[in-house]
This record gives sequence, C-alpha cells and structure tokens, in this order.
Amino acid sequence: MMNIGILGAGQLGRMLALAGYPLGHRFRFLDPASDSPAGLLADHLALDYSDTSALEQFANGLDVVTYEFENVPVEAARYLEKFVPVYPPPMALEKAQDRFVEKSFFQELGIPAPKFESGLSNRIADGIGFPAVLKTRRMGYDGKGQVVAHSQAELESGLLKPIADKADSFILEEFVAFDRELSIIAVRGKSGGTKFYPLIENRHRDGILRLSLVIGNITAELQKQAEEYAQRILSALDYVGVLTIEFFEKDGQLLANEMAPRVHNSGHWTIEGAITSQFENQVRAVCDAPLGSTSPLGVCAMVNLVGTLPDETSILKIEGAHLHLYDKAPRPKRKLGHITLVEKDVTTLNKKLDEIRKVYAEF
Amino acid sequence: MMNIGILGAGQLGRMLALAGYPLGHRFRFLDPASDSPAGLLADHLALDYSDTSALEQFANGLDVVTYEFENVPVEAARYLEKFVPVYPPPMALEKAQDRFVEKSFFQELGIPAPKFESGLSNRIADGIGFPAVLKTRRMGYDGKGQVVAHSQAELESGLLKPIADKADSFILEEFVAFDRELSIIAVRGKSGGTKFYPLIENRHRDGILRLSLVIGNITAELQKQAEEYAQRILSALDYVGVLTIEFFEKDGQLLANEMAPRVHNSGHWTIEGAITSQFENQVRAVCDAPLGSTSPLGVCAMVNLVGTLPDETSILKIEGAHLHLYDKAPRPKRKLGHITLVEKDVTTLNKKLDEIRKVYAEF
Repeated sequence: MMNIGILGAGQLGRMLALAGYPLGHRFRFLDPASDSPAGLLADHLALDYSDTSALEQFANGLDVVTYEFENVPVEAARYLEKFVPVYPPPMALEKAQDRFVEKSFFQELGIPAPKFESGLSNRIADGIGFPAVLKTRRMGYDGKGQVVAHSQAELESGLLKPIADKADSFILEEFVAFDRELSIIAVRGKSGGTKFYPLIENRHRDGILRLSLVIGNITAELQKQAEEYAQRILSALDYVGVLTIEFFEKDGQLLANEMAPRVHNSGHWTIEGAITSQFENQVRAVCDAPLGSTSPLGVCAMVNLVGTLPDETSILKIEGAHLHLYDKAPRPKRKLGHITLVEKDVTTLNKKLDEIRKVYAEF
Repeated sequence: MMNIGILGAGQLGRMLALAGYPLGHRFRFLDPASDSPAGLLADHLALDYSDTSALEQFANGLDVVTYEFENVPVEAARYLEKFVPVYPPPMALEKAQDRFVEKSFFQELGIPAPKFESGLSNRIADGIGFPAVLKTRRMGYDGKGQVVAHSQAELESGLLKPIADKADSFILEEFVAFDRELSIIAVRGKSGGTKFYPLIENRHRDGILRLSLVIGNITAELQKQAEEYAQRILSALDYVGVLTIEFFEKDGQLLANEMAPRVHNSGHWTIEGAITSQFENQVRAVCDAPLGSTSPLGVCAMVNLVGTLPDETSILKIEGAHLHLYDKAPRPKRKLGHITLVEKDVTTLNKKLDEIRKVYAEF
C-alpha cells in the first residue's frame, strides 16, 4: 500500500483513484476547488498550490506525488520534491507548459513538428506562410488561446496590434491541413521499462475532443514512428508515468502538435478497452510496480460528453455502452463524462455509435 | 446522480462504490467498524445498526439504501424503510439469515435442496442418514458454524449433548457428496427485468472460497435449471438487486445450498470478465436504471487471497492478472483480495493460473 498524492482533483484524478484503489493504495488530493470530481472519494485538501505550508501538509505521510493536469505550477512540484518523489519529473511540466519550449524540445529531439516562431514583434510569419495559427504560449487547452490568421495584414493589424506589448507570450505556428489527428499514450516505469497503447484517432469540434477511435486503422509503420518519438521524450526526461503526445498525420507522416505529461482524455477508452487502463498504468509507474499490458481488447470508441448530458437511461439501454460521469454540473464546453464502447468489429462499433448518436448527437 | 446508502463497509461495499462512482452516484456507508475497506472512499458513519438515531442520520438525504452482507439486522433494514426505499427487500434478509427458513423457502418454491430438519431435540437425523451436517441456523459463513456427524452416536452424545438447551438454533442437513459447487448470480431491476450471469464453478478449502471458474463447462440445460430456480426466488420476493444462489451439482442436478441477497465473492470475476460487473448491476438495479449485459468476455478465473497476500510485484508481472486488494490487514482465513484472469481459451487460462500458483499456492 502506498499513499499517493495527486495535484488536481478533476475527473482525471478521480479516475486515477478509481484505478488505484483496487491495487490497495490510498489517495490524497490537493486542489483549491472545494467541490471537485475526485474530492468525494479520497482525502482532499482544498488549498492553494502556491501555499507552501499547504504543500507541506499535503506531502506529510505521502509516498509519492503525481499530477493530473499539466498546468500545475512548476514551483509547487519542485517544492514538493524536497519532501517526496514527484512523478512525472517536474521538468516535463516545464516542457509542456510553454508551447515555444515544447516545440523547441521536439526540434532538439528530431521529432517533426509544425513550423513555428516566437519573438513575433520582430519577425512576423517568417517562413511559415498563411494561414498560420497564433497561439498563447501558456495555459491554452481545448482550443482556447488560439486563432487563425489568413494573411500578413490580418496578422499584423488585426491580431498582433492589440497584443503588441505582450507579443512574446505568443507563438505563431504553421497551419497544418492534417489528414487525421492521432495521439499516442506511452508509459514508462521507474525502472525504465516502457509500454505504448495503440495510436488513437481523435476527432475534435470547437477545439474540444469529441470522439476517440481505436479501430485498427493505423499502419505498423505509423505506430513505430509514434513510439520512436515518444521514446525519445521519455528517455530525454528520464520520465516516470504516462505521457501523451498529440500528432497531426499528414501524407503518412506524423507532426507532433503537443505533449501532456499525464493521463489523457483520448485514453479513456483504456478503462474497458485495454487489458490495463492508462490510469492503472500511471499508478503502477509512479509506485514502481511492473507496468500492465497495453493491448486493446477489441475495437474501441470513446464519446466525450461535453456541455450537456444525454438521457442516462437511454444510454444505459445500449448494450455494452459504458457510461462514465464525473459528477460535474453541466456548463457549455465542459467535459462532463464519456461513454466507451468495446466491440469485436468496426461494423458493430459503428452501429453502436449510431445508437448513441440517436440519444446524444454532440460528437 | 443518486445518493446511495450501503449497510456494511467491507470489500463488497468498496467494490460497489468503485462501480457506482462512474455512473455519477455518491455513497454513504454505515458500519460500526471505524477502519473499513469502503470507509476511505466515501462518507462513513461508524455507528451501530441498532441505533435508531444513527439510522435516521444515515438515511437523511439518501435516495436508496442497499446492503453488502446478509447479516444486516432485519430490524435496521425495516426501520430504514420508513425513510427511504431499501433494496433488496428486507424479506430477502429474513429468508437468508436462517438456514431453516431458507431451506423451507426453497422447498415452498419447489427448488431441490439437501434434505434437512430442525427441532433436533425431538427427532434426530430422521430420514437424513449419515454423514449429516449440523449447522447453526444463523450467522454461519465461510464454513463457520458447521460440523459433520458420522453416526447417530456421534451426533447425540458428541455434538448435541453440549448444545442440548439450544438445539433449536441448529439444523441438520443431508451431507451431499457433490460433483461440483456452482453458483448463479442473478439481478432483477426495479421494473422487473432480470439477467443472469453464467453459472460459476467454485472451489473451497477449509470452507472458504478459493477459486471461481467461468470456463464454458456448463451445459445449457444446467444453466436453464439454475435460472429457473433463481427466477422463482426473484419473483416470490419481488426482488430488486443482485441475488446469489449456491448450488451443489450432483448427477447433473442442482441442489440449492444457500442464497445471499447481495453481490457475492464468486462474482468478482465480473469486474473485468463480464460486460457489466455484478457491482455495477447492483447499483443499476437499486437505482432503477436499465440492467447491463451479463455476457462474459472470455474464460475467467478468480483467485481469492485468503489469510496472506502474495508478493504484489510478482503478481503484477503476470500479463493480464488483475489484482484487487481490499486494504485489510492480513489475518488467518481473512479475505484480503482477489486476482482475476480473463483469457481467450482454457489452455491459456490454466497456464496463467499456474503462473499465479508459483507465487501464491493458496488455492
């Protein structure tokens, strides 16, 4: 039994605890929000991440600390390291929190990524061309903090002028007319072993993930490419835990869009759809237990419940539809839950997705 | 979201909560033991079942109450019914708590059972023959409270004499030299629909379940027989929730040994091994949600961890071994956890069981 501390008590923390209890572990969450999805089912300190005495209180008696969102203040993670091991290493937070640092890191490791530049006050769209995507370097998620510029004029006068004094906190990226969005979920144990889940196809709307598919539509070559890129990051950071990389697929090649040093929405299908879920593997990794098999149990789909909830009874009537609710109040664009399907073949999977669509058309 | 109250906070309650959180429900436990497997992950009132003010405090704000052990005081369940629906119906507790009442109930419903008699002070072993099993009518579990009598002399002088003043609290049963021990787990929804898991083969040692197998070694006829018997009980009690019946199989016929009005140790394999687990179906049933599919996902085995725990690392190294620990301190004969296997075929399953046996030979 280990006492595991988790920074952040959202749905990812909740699912970490649900996966970790069967292994006999105990959980404590730190999250300033008093009403949080994970707070109900474990110890919960509703204190601020910047409060060092709160951090010490949190760390007291813990065997290991991990986190469930990548915008954990790095200082908090570093401070906690004085008292208790923190995995994934806080360096991973530094790399993931700033799009410029992140993309530069991909570049250093030879991982193809969309062209990008910062220092926008000096050189604008140099070599990137249009359309281009202007993004905040920090705190962007679910499509927030980004806008497409279609011309030099639009970029300069329309977009950059209002933010002239803080242009350095933005990054301009090549707009990739991708064929598919894919993600890989990797996990590395404390003793160095790594495992990879199959590449997941992700479909977004309004910048928010709506549907993830694991349906055998990935070539072995593409899988290998993704695993190699992930392995470079895992090794470079001496990583422990689950790492997610989101890619654009374009003409059979992968371009790294971003990484998340944590369990990921696109991996929720693993709860029922893989021998070991991403959540259990995160727990195993940070506790230095052997990693579990990442093999899928069938063809899988994960439907996100965003903003509104479907009629529960209608969903539960669909044979094999696994409903996951996060106990969050509905609010536009908020992730409230998900539904997983695991089926023997794609035809059946699509039929089930159609059944879900009749009840909930938001994907 | 429903607020669900559970009487008893042992491992069954723990697994009920773990299965019910993803459906968005909240849990409150009542159990006098302050350090209990389920208490960590939900509200927990460590108060006595016989304390009516505790019961009222417990019931306050709940939408439904259920229980995780069959020795819940019936008076407590009946008292709670004044404030909140209680499922399964307390009548099921009355039938299950007393072996004489239980066996008489089987008889009334035409469900074959071992021959039995009570009123031992008057008529001893009349028509039962030897060996016979002397059992306490109440509070027996895991082989406790029963002893085999091999002759009239042994029964009268050795066994009955010391308990002469309380002979009516015992029952004498035919000793069945069974071929197999089987159990069926049934679930009935509030609106009357029922589902059945496949018959499970159970192997005991020292009266305690060690191994459950779902390996396709049950004929359709036997399955039908078990479902018909279960249906009679479900209908007679206007039952809501999961019901387990343990059978002896003898010469291709089923004899009902006992029933448990709750989720059951022999059904733990359903967590990974069935589309919907017994725990989720219990939650669905008492919340009046549609029942989930009870289809198995492969051939399954459940190994009980009794008294001592295996080396965790060695177990987690076995691909596909799902470890479940109840966060209980080891103690002889105590159920501390279980391991589930779900495989494509029996050969692989047996190989995996052998791998487990190398680490943990207690089954």
